Amino acid sequence: MSPADVRTVACVGAGVIGGGWTAYYLARGYDVRAHDPAPDAEQRLSALVDAAWPALQEVGLAPGASRDRLTMCDRLEDAVAGADVVQESAPEVLDLKRALLAAIDAAAGPHVVVASSTSGYGMSEMDTGVVHPERFVVGHPFNPPYLIPLVEVAGSPRTDPDVVAWVGEFYSRAGKSVLVLDAEVPGFVANRLQEALWREALHMVANGEASVEQIDAAVVQGPGLRWAFHGPMLTFHLAGGPGGMAHMLDHFGPSLLSPWTRLEAPELTPRLRDEVVAGCDREAGGRSVADLVAERDASLIAVLRATGRLPAGSTHPDAPADRPERASGWAGEDT
Amino acid sequence: MSPADVRTVACVGAGVIGGGWTAYYLARGYDVRAHDPAPDAEQRLSALVDAAWPALQEVGLAPGASRDRLTMCDRLEDAVAGADVVQESAPEVLDLKRALLAAIDAAAGPHVVVASSTSGYGMSEMDTGVVHPERFVVGHPFNPPYLIPLVEVAGSPRTDPDVVAWVGEFYSRAGKSVLVLDAEVPGFVANRLQEALWREALHMVANGEASVEQIDAAVVQGPGLRWAFHGPMLTFHLAGGPGGMAHMLDHFGPSLLSPWTRLEAPELTPRLRDEVVAGCDREAGGRSVADLVAERDASLIAVLRATGRLPAGSTHPDAPADRPERASGWAGEDT
Repeated sequence: MSPADVRTVACVGAGVIGGGWTAYYLARGYDVRAHDPAPDAEQRLSALVDAAWPALQEVGLAPGASRDRLTMCDRLEDAVAGADVVQESAPEVLDLKRALLAAIDAAAGPHVVVASSTSGYGMSEMDTGVVHPERFVVGHPFNPPYLIPLVEVAGSPRTDPDVVAWVGEFYSRAGKSVLVLDAEVPGFVANRLQEALWREALHMVANGEASVEQIDAAVVQGPGLRWAFHGPMLTFHLAGGPGGMAHMLDHFGPSLLSPWTRLEAPELTPRLRDEVVAGCDREAGGRSVADLVAERDASLIAVLRATGRLPAGSTHPDAPADRPERASGWAGEDT
Repeated sequence: MSPADVRTVACVGAGVIGGGWTAYYLARGYDVRAHDPAPDAEQRLSALVDAAWPALQEVGLAPGASRDRLTMCDRLEDAVAGADVVQESAPEVLDLKRALLAAIDAAAGPHVVVASSTSGYGMSEMDTGVVHPERFVVGHPFNPPYLIPLVEVAGSPRTDPDVVAWVGEFYSRAGKSVLVLDAEVPGFVANRLQEALWREALHMVANGEASVEQIDAAVVQGPGLRWAFHGPMLTFHLAGGPGGMAHMLDHFGPSLLSPWTRLEAPELTPRLRDEVVAGCDREAGGRSVADLVAERDASLIAVLRATGRLPAGSTHPDAPADRPERASGWAGEDT
C-alpha cells in the first residue's frame, strides 16, 4: 500500500501521546481505531480529543475530518486487524512493549507497518518477540503530537529500509516534519538534547542553585525564544559575529572546559571543529551571518508577539516614562 | 542616583554583545558612551547598531531615542567618567576582565554601578583588582541583547545587596526581564542549561550520531517550539497528563537512569521529587493541567504562525490532498 492510500490508523495506547496521535490523525481525515486496556480508556481518550480539538480546528481540519471516525476497540486485535498502519503509544515499560508489539505483529495484516512512539527504547530492544521485525520502526513524536511537527524515525538493524522510507513518507503526507536517523541512538536526537538540559536543571534544583520557576523563566525569557526557530548550532553561529561558528569555536572553545554544566565536554578536535563549522555553512545555505541576523530578529519579534510579550504593532512593553531630550554634548574622541 | 534617573550608560566593549547593548540602550532613549580599544571599533559598532536598528524601530523606540546619542570614546576613562552606569562586555578572558574592571573602578564616579556581561565568570573571580567591589555585579544578557528579554543578575559575596537591587530595577525599567540569583553559580542558570544541551550536541556530532543540521532541525521542529513559552519544568508538567509533574516523576523517574545523554542524572530523592512538584504547582499558580494545555496549544499555534510554519488563519501547511469521505463502518466494541 502506498502511504497516500492509508485510510485507517490503529492507535494503540490512549495516554497523553496516544490520545494526541488519535486527535491528530482524526483531524487529518483518517479513520482511527483505538485500543487501550484501561477500564476508563474511552472516557480518557474522549477527554484528550476534546482538549486537542479546538486547536486542531483552528489549525484547520482536513476535508472530511471528523471525530465520528474514531472507533474504540475493546480488543487489541479488533483495533489492529482493520488498520493500514499502526501507531503504538503504550507506557515506557520494556516488557510491556515487547509483549504488545508481539501481539500487534500477530494481529496486523501481513504488510502493515507498525510504528512505536517510544521515547527512549530502540526498536531492536523491543522487537524481540515479533515474527516480522522488518515492518517495525520507531516513529517518535513530541508532546503534543497534534501540534509539534517533529517525528523521529529510526529502524532497527532488522527493519526493512523500505519500511523506514514508507513511514517517513506517511508522516510527511500526514503533515509532520520527519527526521530519519541513520541508526539507533538511545533517546534519538531531540530527546537526548532535552534530557541533557533537563538533567542539568534537576541538578540545579537538587543543589539549591536555582528554583523550578527560575529555571523555567531563564529558558522562556532567554535561549528558549531562539530555539523556536534556530537550533543550538545556528544560534552559536550568530554569536560569533561575522566570523560565525568558526570564530565561535576558535575563540570560545577553551571555555568548553569551564564547569558550566555537569556534562563533560567532548574534546574539540580539529575534525569536530571543522565538521560543526561545515554543518553550519550547509545549514546557512549561502545566507551570510548578517542575513541570518536579520531573519533571527524578525523571527524573535514575531515570537515575542506570538507569546504575548510584545503587543502586535505597538511599542516596547516596558517602555520607560518619557524622559526629556538632552543634547549629547560629550566631547568623545572618535577613533 | 535612582535607577529612574539614569541618563547615560557607558558600554565598554563593542563586539556582538557590547554592540547589542549599545543599540538597545540607544533605542530605550539613553545616551551611550562607548569604548573599545580595537582600531576599527567605531566602524564595527556602527555596523552592529545598523543591523539592530530596524528591529528596534519595529519594536518601538522610546521617546527621544536616537542613534545620535552615541558617543564613541577613544579612551576608556572618557567613556566611563560621564556615565551613570557601566555595562562591560569585553572578551571572555579572565586577566583582561580583571584589568579592565580595575581600570573602570578607577575612572567611574564613586557611586556608579558597574555591570559585567560576562557569560561565565563569577564577579568574585573578576573583581580581584578593584577598590570598590561593592558596586560590581554581573548583568548577563543573551544574544541579541536588544531583543532577548533575559538578564541574569548575580553579585559576588562582596557586592552590596543594594547594588544588586539597584541594577535589577535599572534593567527592569530599561525593559528587560531580570533574573536575580541568590548566589554565584558558574554559568548562571540559562547558560548552564543551554551549555548542557550544546555539549550533548557536540558529542553527537563527534560520534556521528547526528549531523549539525539534524540537531538543529530536531530542536526547531520539536522541543524548541515549546521552550519559547514553557520552560523544561512546565513542559514535563504537561507530559504527565492530569497528574502533572508528580505523575511524570513517579512514572518516568526510573528512566532518568537510561543512557539518553552523557550527563549523569542526579538521584531522584523524595526531597528533589517534592521540590520539583511543588515548584511546578507554584508556577502553575492555580491553573490546572487542562488550563495549561489550552494555553500551550494557543501559544504553539501562535509560534508556528510567527515562524512561518503555519499561514495566518489558514489550514494546515501540509494538508494532504482531498480524500473521499468514507463511512466508519467498523464494528468496534466500545468499552
